[in-house]
Amino acid sequence: MSPDSLETRPHADRLNRLRGRMAAEGLTGFLIPKADEHQGEYIAPCSERLAWLTGFTGSAGTACVLADRAAIFVDGRYTLQAADEIDAQAFAIRHTSKAPLVEWLTENLKTGDVLGVDPWLVTKTQQTRLETVCERTGAVLKLVDGNPIDDIWTGRPGKPMNPVTPLPREVVAESGGDKRNRVSKDLSLAGLDAYVLTQPDSIAWILNVRGGDVPFTPLPLSFAVLHDDGSIDWIVERGKLAPETVAAVLGDAVRQVAPENFGDVLEALGGKAKRVGIGHALAPVAIHDRLTQSGALVRDVEDPCAKPKACKSDRELSGVIAAHVRDGAALGNFLCWLDDTASRGSVTETQAAERLEKFRETNDRFRGLSFPTISGAGPNGAIVHYRVAPETNRALEPGSLYLIDSGAQYLDGTTDVTRTIAIGDPTEEMRRVFTLVLKGHVAIADAIFPEGTTGSQLDVLAREHLWRAGLDYDHGTGHGVGTYLSVHEGPQRISKLGNGVALEPGMVISNEPGCYKPGAFGIRIENLVAVAKAETPEGGDRPLMRFETLTLAPLDRRLIDAALLDDGELTWVNAYHERVFKTLSQRVLAETRPWLEAVTRPIERNAFTPCGKHSPTPAINPS
Amino acid sequence: MSPDSLETRPHADRLNRLRGRMAAEGLTGFLIPKADEHQGEYIAPCSERLAWLTGFTGSAGTACVLADRAAIFVDGRYTLQAADEIDAQAFAIRHTSKAPLVEWLTENLKTGDVLGVDPWLVTKTQQTRLETVCERTGAVLKLVDGNPIDDIWTGRPGKPMNPVTPLPREVVAESGGDKRNRVSKDLSLAGLDAYVLTQPDSIAWILNVRGGDVPFTPLPLSFAVLHDDGSIDWIVERGKLAPETVAAVLGDAVRQVAPENFGDVLEALGGKAKRVGIGHALAPVAIHDRLTQSGALVRDVEDPCAKPKACKSDRELSGVIAAHVRDGAALGNFLCWLDDTASRGSVTETQAAERLEKFRETNDRFRGLSFPTISGAGPNGAIVHYRVAPETNRALEPGSLYLIDSGAQYLDGTTDVTRTIAIGDPTEEMRRVFTLVLKGHVAIADAIFPEGTTGSQLDVLAREHLWRAGLDYDHGTGHGVGTYLSVHEGPQRISKLGNGVALEPGMVISNEPGCYKPGAFGIRIENLVAVAKAETPEGGDRPLMRFETLTLAPLDRRLIDAALLDDGELTWVNAYHERVFKTLSQRVLAETRPWLEAVTRPIERNAFTPCGKHSPTPAINPS
Repeated sequence: MSPDSLETRPHADRLNRLRGRMAAEGLTGFLIPKADEHQGEYIAPCSERLAWLTGFTGSAGTACVLADRAAIFVDGRYTLQAADEIDAQAFAIRHTSKAPLVEWLTENLKTGDVLGVDPWLVTKTQQTRLETVCERTGAVLKLVDGNPIDDIWTGRPGKPMNPVTPLPREVVAESGGDKRNRVSKDLSLAGLDAYVLTQPDSIAWILNVRGGDVPFTPLPLSFAVLHDDGSIDWIVERGKLAPETVAAVLGDAVRQVAPENFGDVLEALGGKAKRVGIGHALAPVAIHDRLTQSGALVRDVEDPCAKPKACKSDRELSGVIAAHVRDGAALGNFLCWLDDTASRGSVTETQAAERLEKFRETNDRFRGLSFPTISGAGPNGAIVHYRVAPETNRALEPGSLYLIDSGAQYLDGTTDVTRTIAIGDPTEEMRRVFTLVLKGHVAIADAIFPEGTTGSQLDVLAREHLWRAGLDYDHGTGHGVGTYLSVHEGPQRISKLGNGVALEPGMVISNEPGCYKPGAFGIRIENLVAVAKAETPEGGDRPLMRFETLTLAPLDRRLIDAALLDDGELTWVNAYHERVFKTLSQRVLAETRPWLEAVTRPIERNAFTPCGKHSPTPAINPS
Repeated sequence: MSPDSLETRPHADRLNRLRGRMAAEGLTGFLIPKADEHQGEYIAPCSERLAWLTGFTGSAGTACVLADRAAIFVDGRYTLQAADEIDAQAFAIRHTSKAPLVEWLTENLKTGDVLGVDPWLVTKTQQTRLETVCERTGAVLKLVDGNPIDDIWTGRPGKPMNPVTPLPREVVAESGGDKRNRVSKDLSLAGLDAYVLTQPDSIAWILNVRGGDVPFTPLPLSFAVLHDDGSIDWIVERGKLAPETVAAVLGDAVRQVAPENFGDVLEALGGKAKRVGIGHALAPVAIHDRLTQSGALVRDVEDPCAKPKACKSDRELSGVIAAHVRDGAALGNFLCWLDDTASRGSVTETQAAERLEKFRETNDRFRGLSFPTISGAGPNGAIVHYRVAPETNRALEPGSLYLIDSGAQYLDGTTDVTRTIAIGDPTEEMRRVFTLVLKGHVAIADAIFPEGTTGSQLDVLAREHLWRAGLDYDHGTGHGVGTYLSVHEGPQRISKLGNGVALEPGMVISNEPGCYKPGAFGIRIENLVAVAKAETPEGGDRPLMRFETLTLAPLDRRLIDAALLDDGELTWVNAYHERVFKTLSQRVLAETRPWLEAVTRPIERNAFTPCGKHSPTPAINPS
């Protein structure tokens, strides 16, 4: 391969240089995950090592470079995108579950090989899995000191240094001190002297601070050690702390520690043989090893902030509800605009997404989107994790469905909502499938369940009607949502996969069944709901729970086939629409109001023809 | 304590003698689980060490004896029974989940203590848990060589030596050789050279033999080592093998090994550094340690026979269906007799159970009950694991419910069925709760679900209607059932607890939602169902599955409030009853036939008053 050809193949050139560094460090292999030190969903530009090396910009993936071959492992969402972005001569593209990394390593590693990993980007759980493969093949797993990519990445962005500010007093539901005391008590009960927090959203939550180090989530990147006396060592650059944060947060109980001294904090725990918890599935192995090597007794314990953070207090929920009312008004204005404009066939996916963002921006508590908007017209709506790009941007065409999944960060809450909209006249198939999805959505929204029930137990309620039609959706039904924090948070979820976490009052979770016909249309109906206590009816013998729907936006009645709904489902839809109208009518733009009234009026069973009979859908737009 | 008092307290005396043996062996503690070497549900008399030591005869429990104190740990089913049976001065009674063994050990073990366990009665999983406690308290866990109870148990029964016979040719669905080849191929694919089978039902299945070493299950107790060449070392007393078994089963591929030579077989695997699978949750730690100490590479792998055994072939299913038709005729005769006799108020729980057994015995393929019949009148029906005893035996009284959960072993199938019967006029509450349970039963029976779905995913369908009324049941919805084997088998189940095993065609599983009002009544409706493929309707995009109900016995229509059933549920009930009548009408006794016709005639919605209104239930008994 001549140097000339490399000039036109920048990623092959980078790969070559990486191999040079690897050889210099005695590595015959090196692993490059899409990951930062916090296993975050969104990462800072300086952590985009995978994208820099391979050109691949998807949200998940791992590359492995050996001396004579290299491969990148991506999931089903990204095989096409990877093929577009990646130099196929340099990297073989592998499907992460059909041809997993472990299999590739088993085939390609040999006795004497040394596979390097960056111990800050790999968790204990991942390390254990990699060590098993290495043992099997006679190779050795080596934790490198300093990532070789960083040595060759000229122009690598600096670490993010965005200011960390205290959460405004009016949205603080519980003082940082109270939170620290509460969680540290749990630590003591679990027999731990300290816990190393590696999740930036847990740290932002317990300290009542926010920042801006990554896109879409108001997170300062940092680590923290919570001690059983309720004090915290906060490992964060002093330069990131706004003066009001220093004043409001730092003190005897919250001590700022410079990142270069993080190791000393860990070793101090080890020196006193402290019992220290970390999460093996999320914490960097570098932290684990520093602790154990210095004498700490390390135990794999889940993040003690995760559950208290997930269970919003009444005061937090008031903020979340207010944020959803504001978001609902913006959605109402957007959907009205869309109904009027899209029928004229002139709107593209990008324009629609931008328009919705504009409506949201008019709120003074708006702080940005909570994730990249999924704006999918026609067949693009069937791509579950679609992100509009100039090459794929489609117009919203008559006779098609348009799916928009979007959310916003407000100072007092995070939103996430999906609506599927008929552009022009929908087909009977679209109406039938939409109504089946709606039945599942209502089943979750209206579920009553005993204390101790998990989201996994409820999942089938969202799917059973689709199953009967031979349909399903290959994603979860619901994920936890933070409060002006991550739009995806644990520990609860509604999923086919087993999850042992019981739903508890105050947890906010999405309710988002869907159905996708590749090449044709995508349907998803997503509201956020909050878990609440329910009254036990007479004759009952146990405490019950239910969901309260938070999201307020009309469901497209042109897509609802009332003949497929039972009485309970129809009652739910009508009550929801009544609530949407009552809550939003005085908050939407004057020109939106008559539209909102029309699209939320009660659906009467007789006004619709039974399923399967072809007939024009009733006119929806009153203008 | 004087020797005199011990004479009247035999269990205190035994405890004393055990402590003497413990001291002689350097033990300060000893653990006595209700368990045999196979972790079996039913165990032979020689394995009843817990009952011998403590007097406790319940089906599950563990005692722990220390030098100065002793406790027995039983679950909620058995706290009352334990109080009756146990010498409370000798043994403290603890609730297994409210005051667990691990907690008690943590409180009571101290540095230097030596806690003994019999390595044949404890699994690797249990050992790991116990070692953690010992480490925490400074004690040591010691695997004893020979159980000290056996040294002091005078008159201990011998090991069961019941004959092992080949399964009759006409009910063999697949030859032993084919089974061995099929399973050993899976072993090779999993990278194993051999697997140590410790579950007697797996061994009976793969060898096509049956025996009689334990009650209720036609099992020969034995171990086996399956090799990757499809051959088996069968660790079983030669004296147990009937001549026809020797002729039909033994040979080059199936080698009988005397139990005293089991260790040699394990060490031979170790000497060749074989990769050997065992189940850490079920196999005795004695086997695990013998393997590892002799050099084998032991891996925790689930029993490779479990899944193939669970997935019945079409030929096996024909036998299972035939067994259910025979069982259904017996049930029909019994229920008719009961309707006639119980109304006269003269039947007790014991008499009813005996009568049903008599009806079953008339079948020439009947080989015994598959578990002890649960025959619960009135409040006894609310005790989920009730077993009738002379002190608790009740008459079936007018105005009460009677619950009977029973099953039989037939040469071609195992049955398990529960019916709840109104004795005299039921209350509206009984009818309402019965109908809610029925709705859950029908939801499972009529479910349609995609390939890959687990029973845990479906569980909520059986509960959601009860939940809405503030009710539930604290047991699983369904367990796997063997074919002329264990009435409880894995790996599939329908349960609140997560279970990752997908339902596959041919699996037989129970469908048994219930509801219990302590002190008043118990309701359970149990049929066995088989998993089958279902047709994908037009427009569907994935393969579907469904259940076929196997059990044939009328549901008590006096307890069905049709106003609470939706059209689909009512259709299911009527179709089921029609099938019951058509299948059984020529098979029941002549005097049963008119009764069967009456109780299976279609339920019409108008014939019943809406829920909640009081009205006499329609006459049911045509005689």
